[in-house]
Amino acid sequence: MTASNVKEKPRTSTLVQNSYGKSIVRLTKINRESTPPTWKEITVDTELLGDEFAGCYYDGDNSKVVATDSMKNTVYVEGSKHSLSSIEEFGMALAKHYLDDYAHVKEVIVKIKEDMWCNIPVNGKVNPTSFFKSGGDNRVTTIHMDRTKTDIESGVENLVVAKIADSEFAGFIKDNYTTLKETHDRIFGTTINAHWTYNNPKADFNAVYEATRTTILETFADHHSLSVQQTLYAMGDAVLNAVKDIEQISMILPNIHRIPFDLKPFGLENRNEVFVTTSEPQGTIKGTVARKK
Amino acid sequence: MTASNVKEKPRTSTLVQNSYGKSIVRLTKINRESTPPTWKEITVDTELLGDEFAGCYYDGDNSKVVATDSMKNTVYVEGSKHSLSSIEEFGMALAKHYLDDYAHVKEVIVKIKEDMWCNIPVNGKVNPTSFFKSGGDNRVTTIHMDRTKTDIESGVENLVVAKIADSEFAGFIKDNYTTLKETHDRIFGTTINAHWTYNNPKADFNAVYEATRTTILETFADHHSLSVQQTLYAMGDAVLNAVKDIEQISMILPNIHRIPFDLKPFGLENRNEVFVTTSEPQGTIKGTVARKK
Amino acid sequence: MTASNVKEKPRTSTLVQNSYGKSIVRLTKINRESTPPTWKEITVDTELLGDEFAGCYYDGDNSKVVATDSMKNTVYVEGSKHSLSSIEEFGMALAKHYLDDYAHVKEVIVKIKEDMWCNIPVNGKVNPTSFFKSGGDNRVTTIHMDRTKTDIESGVENLVVAKIADSEFAGFIKDNYTTLKETHDRIFGTTINAHWTYNNPKADFNAVYEATRTTILETFADHHSLSVQQTLYAMGDAVLNAVKDIEQISMILPNIHRIPFDLKPFGLENRNEVFVTTSEPQGTIKGTVARKK
Amino acid sequence: MTASNVKEKPRTSTLVQNSYGKSIVRLTKINRESTPPTWKEITVDTELLGDEFAGCYYDGDNSKVVATDSMKNTVYVEGSKHSLSSIEEFGMALAKHYLDDYAHVKEVIVKIKEDMWCNIPVNGKVNPTSFFKSGGDNRVTTIHMDRTKTDIESGVENLVVAKIADSEFAGFIKDNYTTLKETHDRIFGTTINAHWTYNNPKADFNAVYEATRTTILETFADHHSLSVQQTLYAMGDAVLNAVKDIEQISMILPNIHRIPFDLKPFGLENRNEVFVTTSEPQGTIKGTVARKK
Repeated sequence: MTASNVKEKPRTSTLVQNSYGKSIVRLTKINRESTPPTWKEITVDTELLGDEFAGCYYDGDNSKVVATDSMKNTVYVEGSKHSLSSIEEFGMALAKHYLDDYAHVKEVIVKIKEDMWCNIPVNGKVNPTSFFKSGGDNRVTTIHMDRTKTDIESGVENLVVAKIADSEFAGFIKDNYTTLKETHDRIFGTTINAHWTYNNPKADFNAVYEATRTTILETFADHHSLSVQQTLYAMGDAVLNAVKDIEQISMILPNIHRIPFDLKPFGLENRNEVFVTTSEPQGTIKGTVARKK
Repeated sequence: MTASNVKEKPRTSTLVQNSYGKSIVRLTKINRESTPPTWKEITVDTELLGDEFAGCYYDGDNSKVVATDSMKNTVYVEGSKHSLSSIEEFGMALAKHYLDDYAHVKEVIVKIKEDMWCNIPVNGKVNPTSFFKSGGDNRVTTIHMDRTKTDIESGVENLVVAKIADSEFAGFIKDNYTTLKETHDRIFGTTINAHWTYNNPKADFNAVYEATRTTILETFADHHSLSVQQTLYAMGDAVLNAVKDIEQISMILPNIHRIPFDLKPFGLENRNEVFVTTSEPQGTIKGTVARKK
Repeated sequence: MTASNVKEKPRTSTLVQNSYGKSIVRLTKINRESTPPTWKEITVDTELLGDEFAGCYYDGDNSKVVATDSMKNTVYVEGSKHSLSSIEEFGMALAKHYLDDYAHVKEVIVKIKEDMWCNIPVNGKVNPTSFFKSGGDNRVTTIHMDRTKTDIESGVENLVVAKIADSEFAGFIKDNYTTLKETHDRIFGTTINAHWTYNNPKADFNAVYEATRTTILETFADHHSLSVQQTLYAMGDAVLNAVKDIEQISMILPNIHRIPFDLKPFGLENRNEVFVTTSEPQGTIKGTVARKK
Repeated sequence: MTASNVKEKPRTSTLVQNSYGKSIVRLTKINRESTPPTWKEITVDTELLGDEFAGCYYDGDNSKVVATDSMKNTVYVEGSKHSLSSIEEFGMALAKHYLDDYAHVKEVIVKIKEDMWCNIPVNGKVNPTSFFKSGGDNRVTTIHMDRTKTDIESGVENLVVAKIADSEFAGFIKDNYTTLKETHDRIFGTTINAHWTYNNPKADFNAVYEATRTTILETFADHHSLSVQQTLYAMGDAVLNAVKDIEQISMILPNIHRIPFDLKPFGLENRNEVFVTTSEPQGTIKGTVARKK
């Protein structure tokens, strides 16, 4: 088979979906005029959709193609002009840019992940120009924009937590495949991934992020958990009560098991203190909680 | 806030979506009765959906919950009985199991990834009981089953390829954000991720996999590429021509750039031979090709 | 070639070095009797050395082999008895166990990595039984023990930091391979890996760790850096001044570059505010600082 | 503490070791004049040592510093001139460059990792300009050169293998920590990492690599293994017999366990066919085999 054969044959197939873009564009932005200066590190993925891109797929006609290299440049050029006060606002500015400049671009998806940094404390004060990476969790957003509407989804990812009290799992189905014992005192460890949508496109995105992350952490800490599912709902419900601008929130909670190590063969008793830490397999609990209509 | 407060308040929110399951269940299966014996290593994710699971989220009522630990056991127990002739057939058997046993399970999603192994050749013959991991690509499938239908999607992931001839990129839009030069001789490197659906639920899944992977590789090798998009369509079109049982195929092709290193400051000419290998940023080209209706 | 041939031939080669052990043994340990309860997660690698293990290599004679599965069990059994007040003390207890029990074990190497967790704050107070993973850095130790001496090396790994002022790089060699420009205001980002040895085997290992990590961070923040090398020495020197029990400290500091994005092609000026964040290539600066004799 | 304080104080500490360099420099090199053209992708780390670099650490005196950016350039500039016939020869050329140009450089360490690619077969013939990444293993080398000698170490890393027959583990020590059962039919899976040195600096490095990798694979396949240790020695001994230019060979063999799944609770028998695939913990078996003196 040769390329020319492919092209000369009458087409037997149709391109029913297409998109393209630039991924993993990493921007470090300092605002030196702020006091203290701000420092942000974000990773941007941009994706363009539109029927007119089909010519590139069928015939290699690139005349409608915004080069992905230009899309990379756009992140830095627009990033130099924008305050980056929030990743949501910067994402919307990037998306709008493509819809403004190119009629044949029908939809734009911009995803941004932000690494979280803190100022380094020195003798009880913070050094305003030095930073360390605090926590392993990221702040993220996805902007999906066309000429009629803008969907904003924000989130926190990779927030690793565990609790060693107030966690049970019992009353589940016992069938021919069940060997798990009921427990009223198990370690509940998870990596929280939460994503929310807004009922207010003018929300203070930074304040929403802070309030949501705090509410999730506090509810996880204080909830008496009968199952991962129940804690998921409790966290979602608490967020909707605490943060008015959020419309609904989805969570994925892997159950990262700590398995009691059997000390009996060694003549010892495990008083719920010694566990095998595991990374696989994991439970995976998902749910979406929305305001009552 | 305390958990009891959360529960006593009238609910202000609704669970609008839920699912749960067990992920990263890794099974090694030998069929010792085959000649030569077969050896498979797969990773299974199982996910259950159904409205009746909501009680667990709202109230911690686990009476409808198949423990994810039991779901892990199920992979091994069913895996002991099943030939694992193909991951698609095993995935369907697993999904069917939950729908058969539990009326309140409405949908099941089973994802399986298979590591690919080859027998080790020794002096020109293969050793039938020794294996090495060949290639970095995986075979995958997703089975999505309810009581009325079964969707089967199969794929190949992480197939790393590159070509150093017959690849151009020119004629694209030049705007204020463009610095990329046109080229009629660029390296085209990508990591192929392809997923396809079937028009024949009784297809020979192994034969389809082999034919599709081969057709993708051969088309990639021989295509004269004017853009990643064009090669994506060419590969999809070739697969639909070569493999009758496939209904449509989607691909994601990152453009893993090799950037010509500028030798001019050193008084040398780069005759398109010396490149900086990069891992980020990447282009990301997506497309779905279907049979013409 | 067959195994039996291999064994029947007179040996033409000698085993000049051997060791074996168990790696990635992950222990979660709760002390429920403490107030508040303590929670530790560590990963242990154990390695045994001794000439008498050679029989296993030469002839498959396992009679001297402590199974690595037993070495895994040992971590959990000894972990159930030990307070785990510090990873250094637990590591020494594990190493001593093998030397006490087995005359043919000549040396033991135990490596322990500790994940760092914090209590979750709720309304300004901490929840004593709930935790989140704070920071990405790990505390580590390596115990190397034989019957005559014990070498203890402790460390902090993967401590990600950056500073956006007080960092220069100029005055370096300009040769035919140089294109880098001098700068008196560059971002200095690194991932600190520091390891130290002790002059006091009875040191308070936890206090040493805290003081060392703090001194490293504070010196990084406040140092006016003419090069990564100079800051490495300054941090090492500051640690030796601040922490009497440390004998010497080694550091590896990758230089994780943020490269100014060239805005000139877009008619803009980069006032040292917009950078391409990179992960490769990296500078790698190493040094060991010891007390003056 | 401030930087100026640090410098004004009389030095209380000494720099006892230093080195620096550039890591993860990734080069793609095509030789278009070969028939067929060659295509190589390598990752280079370069490290320089010498007492005169101490001034940079103590005082920020960069006058002796070859910028790591220049070291990056050197890989591409020298890479443009060198055939890259083997990573060993290219590594030596790079190391020699620094010793030739800079008297104050006392030692150079160059590490190179090569990704392995194959031509894509099309209808039984290979396409000479298209490639896929075959296997997950890498070819590596480390060159350690000073003005009196050159140490060359070559290796193969990440070669994933498994055997399902001819593997036992029995006769090991049973002590209070032992729960493992003896077995005369276990899966033996490992990831081979092997590194060797030469007795002939003019060896045909490519031929040695091919012969060594083949001998290791064939011995692993055919050896009747009483322990991982025994197979390690058998592979090392076989290499020394097969490859005259090798002086000694070291191997690290993690024991990647497949644990029989207990089917008894489900009324089934596991005829050594169903296993839990694990990634942690691992056994870790090390050994160095040298020619008999």
